[in-house]
Amino acid sequence: MGEELLKAFKQTKHQLPGNGFREAGILKEAFKDVDGHLESDMYGDGQIIEDFQNKMGEYLGKDTAVFFPSGTMAQQIALRIWCDRKGTKKVAYHPLCHLEIHEQDGLKELHHIEPVLLADKHRVICLEDVTSMDEDIACLLLELPQREIGGQLPDYQTLENISVYCREKGIKLHLDGARLFEVLPYYEKTAAEVCSLFDSVYVSFYKGIGGIAGAILAGEKDFTEESKIWKRRHGGDLISLYPYIISSDYYFDKRVNKMGQYYEESKELAEYFNNCENVSTLPQTPVSNMFHVHFSVAKERLVPILADIYKETGIGITGNLRETGENSCYFELSIGDNYGNIPKEQIEKVFGLLDERIKALS
Amino acid sequence: MGEELLKAFKQTKHQLPGNGFREAGILKEAFKDVDGHLESDMYGDGQIIEDFQNKMGEYLGKDTAVFFPSGTMAQQIALRIWCDRKGTKKVAYHPLCHLEIHEQDGLKELHHIEPVLLADKHRVICLEDVTSMDEDIACLLLELPQREIGGQLPDYQTLENISVYCREKGIKLHLDGARLFEVLPYYEKTAAEVCSLFDSVYVSFYKGIGGIAGAILAGEKDFTEESKIWKRRHGGDLISLYPYIISSDYYFDKRVNKMGQYYEESKELAEYFNNCENVSTLPQTPVSNMFHVHFSVAKERLVPILADIYKETGIGITGNLRETGENSCYFELSIGDNYGNIPKEQIEKVFGLLDERIKALS
Repeated sequence: MGEELLKAFKQTKHQLPGNGFREAGILKEAFKDVDGHLESDMYGDGQIIEDFQNKMGEYLGKDTAVFFPSGTMAQQIALRIWCDRKGTKKVAYHPLCHLEIHEQDGLKELHHIEPVLLADKHRVICLEDVTSMDEDIACLLLELPQREIGGQLPDYQTLENISVYCREKGIKLHLDGARLFEVLPYYEKTAAEVCSLFDSVYVSFYKGIGGIAGAILAGEKDFTEESKIWKRRHGGDLISLYPYIISSDYYFDKRVNKMGQYYEESKELAEYFNNCENVSTLPQTPVSNMFHVHFSVAKERLVPILADIYKETGIGITGNLRETGENSCYFELSIGDNYGNIPKEQIEKVFGLLDERIKALS
Repeated sequence: MGEELLKAFKQTKHQLPGNGFREAGILKEAFKDVDGHLESDMYGDGQIIEDFQNKMGEYLGKDTAVFFPSGTMAQQIALRIWCDRKGTKKVAYHPLCHLEIHEQDGLKELHHIEPVLLADKHRVICLEDVTSMDEDIACLLLELPQREIGGQLPDYQTLENISVYCREKGIKLHLDGARLFEVLPYYEKTAAEVCSLFDSVYVSFYKGIGGIAGAILAGEKDFTEESKIWKRRHGGDLISLYPYIISSDYYFDKRVNKMGQYYEESKELAEYFNNCENVSTLPQTPVSNMFHVHFSVAKERLVPILADIYKETGIGITGNLRETGENSCYFELSIGDNYGNIPKEQIEKVFGLLDERIKALS
């Protein structure tokens, strides 16, 4: 049944989420105007990689930055370095942290680091979670926004308080900024302002930015130099990373200044969902380009409704639904370029149909 | 001075080694005829990655194959799996193994595996090295050809004997086949025949094949499935690996059947070097597309000679020289498409000048 929905979604002309499908055209567009004689990076050196690292270091307000093939690699390495510096094997993060649930326990299996899980999994980490933490902890990782709970954020004052506390206690603060660009409009801060609260920062280029893959890890020079040694050890110091670097740079320039637009559109779209019977978003008012959409409807009853709406309107809402109970399911949605290209009356038609057909179920 | 030589080399019209410079054009050529709507792989799934894995599994005569961003990652993981299976932390390999000298000790630092170094570093591993090994060893890694000593090979009978011995003793045999395609013409064997001697096999797509980056790890299904879990842990299970997969596939098709030509040309070119005063190749008669060129000449005296020859003939021999002593230096050379495109009389002119000018030094 999941396949039926995905198939119907892929056949739509427009989609509410995203920047378009993940296709080879993304690479082709990024390379269209690249000179064929442009020299490859070589094992982390060369102008292509150094220029982009410098550009991102500056944007994030950090001395230095290193390009990594993945955030999984970059973040494990960041935590390992902070652990080695303090001589402990303990870090702290949210129970739904990417490292805890999506990385096959690489942090534990490769680095033997023991995470302490902070906060209830249904809410973001608050100051009290941090101040009641064991001081033996080398590093606290904060994910902004907390993706697995719909992209929620602590308020900025909380971030500042956590940062001050950690500095006092000698606990390093690491930013999982997979979606950092996406939260800047809500915080009304620059990336450098947010990053100044953290000792190390990871950002990704294939979420809101819409690139192919790749990550940046930024911090002070002694930290990033050490991260390069671990990058080699992990097998991430490829002879050529330019396919990811050039595309990351291209889509960063194309979209980083559109995050404000995505944020406004995300609030608008969440309202459409919240106006439907048995539908609600988490958070109710988004604080970035993303949110979760929850249905008090059984997945098997919702799939045919959605698939029909896709066929009738040519507009896709989501390609997958995850069951949360017998009569409930949800999906994650992130706004990109697609949403703004759909005429408003067509979007209203979609939500009219959705509301009507869910109502007809009861 | 190294920079002077590299600069002169890059300005030549023709180069004796390689397939051309490592430039963005390599990616552009591979993607020229790729449909923009071709769907990306997704975290190791999808047709692009599965088709190529199946193709390589078949070519290598193994049940299954997994695409990795790097050989560094693939090989550490292979050794880790074999160690876990046997419940030991010991593997054996050559003192100049890639894992020992080029990976910042990832095998030791991430996997806590202790390598036993076999053989003298100036020669390849022989049967006696293996039979005198501790049986507690989980896996023996053989690199074909042994790159750091000019690309030398054991004879095929030795390989077969080592394989039989290891199977008897319950020691897994892993092939570092970074340059496997390149040695098949010398052995007069198919890849599948050579690989049948090994339990696990790694091959690379940016040596003789001339792709951008990427590796395949092949073996039985339970082994490769486990390797996927470790790939995720290492941070190598990227959302999209297609830039490397498509280019690996493209250049594999373009060059895998040219290895016989490269091998013949390599023997011819080695003879040109060996006919020059104070110049010799290792091995004297190449057994693949590669060899080392040793000079009994001080590096600082050789650099201006080479740079002048590049300018006069428009043909580059090498971009770098490594000192081995006060009056000796060497470089590594691998034949690709370039050599066959240079008119023979121009090559003869290069070697006439080289011989003459080295003679003039004494």
